[in-house]
Order: sequence, then structure tokens, then C-alpha cells
Amino acid sequence: MFDGPVAPELDPAERRARLRLARGRRIGPVTFREALAHFGSARAACANLAVPSDGAIATEEAALARAGGRFLVLGDPRYPAALASLPDAPPILSAIGDLSLLGRRALAIVGAREASLAGRRFTAGLAASLGQAGFIVASGLARGIDAAAHESALPTGTIAVLAGGIDQIYPPQNAALHEAIAARGLLLAEAPFGTPPVARAFPRRNRIVSGLSAGVVVVEAAARSGSLITAQYAAEQGREVFVMPGSPMDPRHAGSNTLIRDGAILVRDANDIIGVFGLPQSSPQAAEKPAQKSGDTPTAKVLHALGAEPTAVDELVRRCQVSAATVAEVLLALELEGRLERHRGNRVSLM
Amino acid sequence: MFDGPVAPELDPAERRARLRLARGRRIGPVTFREALAHFGSARAACANLAVPSDGAIATEEAALARAGGRFLVLGDPRYPAALASLPDAPPILSAIGDLSLLGRRALAIVGAREASLAGRRFTAGLAASLGQAGFIVASGLARGIDAAAHESALPTGTIAVLAGGIDQIYPPQNAALHEAIAARGLLLAEAPFGTPPVARAFPRRNRIVSGLSAGVVVVEAAARSGSLITAQYAAEQGREVFVMPGSPMDPRHAGSNTLIRDGAILVRDANDIIGVFGLPQSSPQAAEKPAQKSGDTPTAKVLHALGAEPTAVDELVRRCQVSAATVAEVLLALELEGRLERHRGNRVSLM
Repeated sequence: MFDGPVAPELDPAERRARLRLARGRRIGPVTFREALAHFGSARAACANLAVPSDGAIATEEAALARAGGRFLVLGDPRYPAALASLPDAPPILSAIGDLSLLGRRALAIVGAREASLAGRRFTAGLAASLGQAGFIVASGLARGIDAAAHESALPTGTIAVLAGGIDQIYPPQNAALHEAIAARGLLLAEAPFGTPPVARAFPRRNRIVSGLSAGVVVVEAAARSGSLITAQYAAEQGREVFVMPGSPMDPRHAGSNTLIRDGAILVRDANDIIGVFGLPQSSPQAAEKPAQKSGDTPTAKVLHALGAEPTAVDELVRRCQVSAATVAEVLLALELEGRLERHRGNRVSLM
Repeated sequence: MFDGPVAPELDPAERRARLRLARGRRIGPVTFREALAHFGSARAACANLAVPSDGAIATEEAALARAGGRFLVLGDPRYPAALASLPDAPPILSAIGDLSLLGRRALAIVGAREASLAGRRFTAGLAASLGQAGFIVASGLARGIDAAAHESALPTGTIAVLAGGIDQIYPPQNAALHEAIAARGLLLAEAPFGTPPVARAFPRRNRIVSGLSAGVVVVEAAARSGSLITAQYAAEQGREVFVMPGSPMDPRHAGSNTLIRDGAILVRDANDIIGVFGLPQSSPQAAEKPAQKSGDTPTAKVLHALGAEPTAVDELVRRCQVSAATVAEVLLALELEGRLERHRGNRVSLM
């Protein structure tokens, strides 16, 4: 879906008319398309409908430009092709950041705001592996899983779709991440500049997250989670739905497990996703599958005894039958390699 | 597969000949069938092959009778119909207990010997619900998941298939359960009376567990787990394979998640199994889905912050923004209700 012919640049007058039409009161994405079809062009539609003035659009465009952004108009060659194929594709997107990311295949990772540490770690490992495999990671810049996905994919490319205007920092905890994505990734927003995010905008945002992407990965979706809406959009849009499984006794996985039960693809690690798209499989990330050396060196023994769950250091010493000093040395080496996380209570886990 | 015509009683001389043929050296289940087909009857086969004497069979049958048991011979009307349909059905089974259980639909539950507490609790809830829905629960009387399944299904009906002779108590921890199943359920064994269980008998036992059953439920199968062999038999035998999902970061679920990934049915609770067989669905068991109160009481906050994964108590205090004393009080109440498990390092999890 990314290999179609590149559209020619829109005529500037038609482009401006599309901006006016899209910002028309009560003109949603579907009405926008119908108006284009009915009148033959946005220019003709604007001549016949009550739409904002050229000046109002220029004011918004100037504010957007001052924030370092620009409009992507449906029909523009820069408008994301995967999204353009949707019947309710947003007529306009505000964009701040690296537009070249839109030319690469994206995968969405979405999930719980109240995510567990384990879920965020799984997400971070998955996003890093997908990034290394060449995918852009898209998400909704929410707390929890979304934030973990964006953060981990910043070095390889990430796209955040906002529910409010592109200048609206929400949630406040993600202010630094919002700024980092503007600088190193790409922010997109359907709502006009300056619009605060409102509740009904979130499901609409979700359709863009999935619509931009070849597939959606769901992590820790409880029953009635917003991530299930994204998965629903993805399925309707013909995108693959991937899901991290979890204990049926933990309500954080209730929605996720139902998705798998109903046919979504279970994800054990990034290779389960990469394999679906026929890309070469990467070696698993440390955070997904802790590396385990075979052999009987102290390092091998400690690695064997360590896992994603925090383990007390004295328990490690006992299990490995290696001196406490040697275990401490091995742990320090692992920590310097960035493979070890320390927890309160003198506990450690592999990252 | 339980509704076929009932076979007439075997002729006593033919029955005795089948026992002799089946106990012949190097005569396995497939050779037994081939010999029957080739010679036309076991009596004719015994006249042409080196098989144990009538006296040897009478000795085994007497020992079995003293233990309260009897033989089920392939072709007998009491021989389990689901099993008889297999090309490698055991020619003889020793049986002690309630043979009427063989007339009801069975589901197998199998899994890790080194099971987690959560896995055993899930199994217990599942076995109870399946029993209440009218299913017999079959398993292999191993430690861990098998034992939890048998124990929970004792009141409604359970069948244990042993790897050694029917008198061989293995593992020793399950001696009381072995006795309870003999008294209230049904023990089955393919190996001759008095045969100690040997390693190669365990996979052969697994084919009987699945072969007796309309489906197999797998709980906590690690990579290369024996439960995967049972699942493989089940698939080859045309039985449904059901699997409890788990965290991809916990190696105890590696085999389980791969089964789901490869097409097995994900199980959230008993209704996911009952539904497949078209039976009325029961309400979920408490042990499968911990109840969670909504609201802002300290109990609700602590319950919200708790999960199946162990969490440090001081982390709970921080997250819930409730005093340490209040959290301790709530945890104690949950513990007394049997809903809380305590772990080393002052960590707790919901059961």
C-alpha cells in the first residue's frame, strides 16, 4: 500500500480550498469526500457551502508554521498513503517533525495507560526490535504503553498522533516526550491548532494510529479498553492485529486475551510480527528474551538464574553456588552493559 | 464419538486370548491389531505366536482383582469408546474405580509439574467448572497442574492415567490422591500390574490421556514440556487443544503461547471450553477471575494496584497514596479471605 504512484502536488488554490472545506462546521471526513465528489473540487464546494474564510485558514497555518509545523492535505503527495486509502481519512493533518517517516512502513503499538512495569518493558523491547527491523512505531502519546513505545523507538523513528491540536500537550506527564518527538520524530493531529483534547477525539485519534500502520500491536488491554477500539479500527481497515498474551487471572489482559481468542495474532516477541511481513528476523531483544549463555562460567550461571522478574541478590548467590563477591562482579558487568535493572530490596532483573 | 452402538460382550475365550496376545513380548498396540486382523481372532493368533500362558494372565488378573481392579479389553463394551477409535489404542487397560465415568465426555487438563500457584489455582477453578458442566476431568496424576485438576474434579468425576502399573504410586507425593481417585474416581494403566513407571512410558501415557478426552487443556507448558507431547497427540487424534495464555516474559508459558500462536484455542475461563462443545455456559469461578471492586475505598485502591505479579508492599503504599498502616490492614483482610499471596522481599500478589 506504500508503492502506489505518487500524486502530483495539489494546485495551490485547490489546496487552500480543501483546507477551508475541511475546517467547515459539521464537515467531517466523509462529508468532505462527498462534497469533493459532488462539486467536483474543493474550490467549487467552497463557493457553494458556508466555510471559513481564506483569512481564518491563513491564521491557523501561520500559528502552525510558528510552531514549526505544516498542513498535510488529503491529495497532497506528502499525505500518508496508508491513511489516504481510508473512507474516513482526515482531510487535513497538522504535522510537526520529520515528514520522511511517512514514507516508511509503520506499526502501531497501543495499550494500557495504567500499564504494569512488565508490560512497559515488553513494549520497550518490542519497539526497539521493530525499529531495528526498519519499522516506524506509531502510537497515541498516552501514558503507559504508548509512551514506552514512543520512547524506545525515538532513535529509529516514531510517529505520535494527538487527540487535540498539535500544540496541545496531553497528558502533561508526556511534555518532554511531545517535545522529543517534534524534534526527532513526527507529531500528527487532526484537530485544528489550539483545540484542547476532548473525550470524543480519542477514538477518532485511534483510527488514525491504526490507519497509518500496517498492523497494530496491543499490550495489556483490559476489558473495555480504548486499545480495543484501535484494534477494531485496525481490523476494519484490513490491518493486522497483534496481541501480547497474559494471565487470564489478571484483568489487565482480559481484552487482550479476548482479541487473541477471536483471531488476533499472538505475539511472543518481535519476530512474530516481523515474520508476518516477510522481513528478515532479527535476533530477539534482551528485554524480550533474556540472553542465556550456556556453559558453567559464573556469568552463565547468573544469567541462567536471572529473568524478567526481580530476584533477590542473596537468592542468586544461593542458587548459583558462586561466591557473593563473584555474583556482585557479574551483576556490575551486566549493569554496565545495560542488561541489568536494579530494584529496591537488593533485587535485580534482566532488561 | 460416545454415541456409537454398544459392542456385545466379548466371548470369554476370545477375551482371555486377547489378554495373552496383548501381554506378548514385543506385541505393541499396533502389532496387536495387525495380529487380530491377520489371524482373524486373538485365539488364532495365540495358537501361532509365542505369548504368555493362560496361567500368567490369571496371576496378573488375580493380583489386579485383589487391588479392587479389573481389565478392560479392546472390544469389550466397557472399553472407552473415544480411546478405541485410535489406531494405537491400548489392547488392555487395568482399571480401578468407577467404570461408569468412562461413559461420560472427558476433558484432559495437563501442565507443568513445577507449576506456579497461580497456574494451580486457575486449574482448580477450571476443573471445578468443567465438572459442574458435566465433564469428567482426565489427567496424568503428575505433580503440579495434573494433581490440581484431579483434586478439584474429585467430587464431579476424574480419571487418572498412570505411566506404570496401576498399583505403582508415582510420584510418592500423590499417594493420597492416588488412593482417593481409586475410591471416588477411576485409575487406568496400560502397563502390567507391578510394572514400575519408566521414562518412555510417560509419552505413551499421554496419548491415553488425550485419547480418552474430547479435548486437552494445557496450563503452563514451557518450551519442550511433556504437555506439548500430549497436545501433539490430541491434535493428531482430532481432539481440540485449549491453552491458558501467559506472559511472554515468563518461560513457563513459552510452549503454551506457541501452541496458541499455532492455532490452539485460547482459554480465559471454562466457558471458552464449554462453548466449543455446545453446552450451557456457567458463570465464571471466583478462582479464575478475581473480583475487583470499583470505587475509591482503600480496599479498591489496593486491589486495583495488585495483580498476579508480585508487587512490593512499599510500592503499593506509594501507588495507592494510602497510609502504610491502612495498606497493611487491607492486605491482612485479603489474606484472610484467601485472596492474597505473600512472597519473599515483602512482596504480595492477588491469588
